[in-house]
Amino acid sequence: MTAYQAAGVDIEAGKQATELMARAVQATYTPAVLAGMGAFAGCIDLGQALAAYREPVLVASTDGVGTKTLVAARLGRFTSVGQDLVYHCVNDLLVQGARPLFFMDYVAAARLDAQQAADVVRGVAEACRSVGCVLLGGETAEMPQVYQEGAFDLAGTMVGLVEKADILPRSVAAGDLVLALPSTGLHTNGYSLARRLVEPLGYTACPPELDGQMIGEALLAIHRPYLLEVERLREAVDLRALAHITGGGVYDNLPRVLPAALGALIRRGTWKEPGIFGLLCRLGALSTREAFHTLNMGLGMLVIVRPEDAVEALDTLPALRQVGELVEWDGAGERVRVLE
Amino acid sequence: MTAYQAAGVDIEAGKQATELMARAVQATYTPAVLAGMGAFAGCIDLGQALAAYREPVLVASTDGVGTKTLVAARLGRFTSVGQDLVYHCVNDLLVQGARPLFFMDYVAAARLDAQQAADVVRGVAEACRSVGCVLLGGETAEMPQVYQEGAFDLAGTMVGLVEKADILPRSVAAGDLVLALPSTGLHTNGYSLARRLVEPLGYTACPPELDGQMIGEALLAIHRPYLLEVERLREAVDLRALAHITGGGVYDNLPRVLPAALGALIRRGTWKEPGIFGLLCRLGALSTREAFHTLNMGLGMLVIVRPEDAVEALDTLPALRQVGELVEWDGAGERVRVLE
Repeated sequence: MTAYQAAGVDIEAGKQATELMARAVQATYTPAVLAGMGAFAGCIDLGQALAAYREPVLVASTDGVGTKTLVAARLGRFTSVGQDLVYHCVNDLLVQGARPLFFMDYVAAARLDAQQAADVVRGVAEACRSVGCVLLGGETAEMPQVYQEGAFDLAGTMVGLVEKADILPRSVAAGDLVLALPSTGLHTNGYSLARRLVEPLGYTACPPELDGQMIGEALLAIHRPYLLEVERLREAVDLRALAHITGGGVYDNLPRVLPAALGALIRRGTWKEPGIFGLLCRLGALSTREAFHTLNMGLGMLVIVRPEDAVEALDTLPALRQVGELVEWDGAGERVRVLE
Repeated sequence: MTAYQAAGVDIEAGKQATELMARAVQATYTPAVLAGMGAFAGCIDLGQALAAYREPVLVASTDGVGTKTLVAARLGRFTSVGQDLVYHCVNDLLVQGARPLFFMDYVAAARLDAQQAADVVRGVAEACRSVGCVLLGGETAEMPQVYQEGAFDLAGTMVGLVEKADILPRSVAAGDLVLALPSTGLHTNGYSLARRLVEPLGYTACPPELDGQMIGEALLAIHRPYLLEVERLREAVDLRALAHITGGGVYDNLPRVLPAALGALIRRGTWKEPGIFGLLCRLGALSTREAFHTLNMGLGMLVIVRPEDAVEALDTLPALRQVGELVEWDGAGERVRVLE
């Protein structure tokens, strides 16, 4: 054992993880990748990618998956959180109108389990591949005394491109409609609250709200990427704005794409809320305000369209629901109101 | 207190941190920034940046600062690790010949202290500004049960540009010389070992190797960015390759830019090793192999040049030292040999 190993860091474990994940990572490469794994920095030739753009704008988002990693660790399933992370970033880029180009991941733990780290990165790589994104690089770090034993963190940065004239959001107005694409569950937010609430039942319980599914399964439901649906929608209608409902819920995220004088009404009951939300509301006796400020409540991605485009939009995407509308807001009271 | 706060997550603390860091972040913006803080994803207009390139290649690197965060937390100094992170990434991009364009940071802790998170990001922003890099976005995460109380992690991704024809490394050959730019100390690697070794002395001790400096100060010495020096060098001589000496030391990092049939001799005593390395070698009775496999030992950035360019290179940068040469390597024995 070297002195460094005695200090809790094993360089060889890092190397082993890298070997285990190499094939999945390299499967995301395109001919544009000039330097990938092993290089000090990944290199991607912009030539071909830029050919499609007149005025290219780079778009970037950094995210983590929160304490969903703890649920993954408890259930011993490490691949799906990798997918969650990528899809979360895909959706954030989408809100600006951008498509993914490449991704960089960061996995850290108190002690690096080579197989588990490789499983996480395999999930990242598979998700990248499914959306045509190169996994260009990343970092695995072993940090004893920073992380708790058995816990890990997972974060990443996605970089994409958008034509300058196509950047979202565009101008929106009172009377524009709020449509919603469904979430699969919590996606990547609210896990600290959810884990505390389900603790007395355990992850293998099947409460009535979940129709026979185990709590652990419902909590690990994979973050849904909206790239393909939104691209179809953009071809069909004049899409004005998108809002990805993440930490802070609809209250905090919808206003991020609205001008100062606008708010929104959201009419509960116009979309189906996955059972996990009903369960959490019951266990925590959550008020509407608390629920919609912490959880997405089934609203994965909000889509703003002009009223005259609603029928075409709803016809284009069967999963889409009309859930509310934009209204004038004078700065007093709640900017987003959820009507029961 | 909301249910979410009871679960250990305070959305308001995150908002407060964001407000505290806003001015420093926005000071890094250029007119090319189309969307920054508050947006779902940062947007940067490529138009002006690309005007300088015939065949632009995007270069990206993700890094952390390891358990240097624990030293920072113990000393209550949170700004310099932000600088460390940026400079680490600057140097990694430099190895590929690239200049920084923008940066994305990630700060996570068990409990988010708004002031501390803002101090970290202020360090990130100041360092970005000093190298002409936009701090385009980031994420702060509060993850109870993942992080240990009082500890935090800091990681980031830098994206830059390089002209395709200028990508490093270029071809190198046996007989090429290895020059070195000095490190200020451990930079961002080896902290788990270093912290364990200095524990019995404490961070306020002033052992003889440090010439009156306290251990804590020596450990927090800021990672040195080599951007300006390397740019001057590239103008003066035909620079063949660079190797940033990070985790794994000279043994692991120099081979990353060498073809398979080449190794290197490094002649100890040809450069000045900062006192912190002598201290750690004494406290841990580290072998040469262990020391140079874990620590940079004063070799911050290695620079490979043709023998005929050595004089010009050394004249251009007074801090540069000739520390070794490339040699043929037949696959047997150590690929990098450190001669005492």
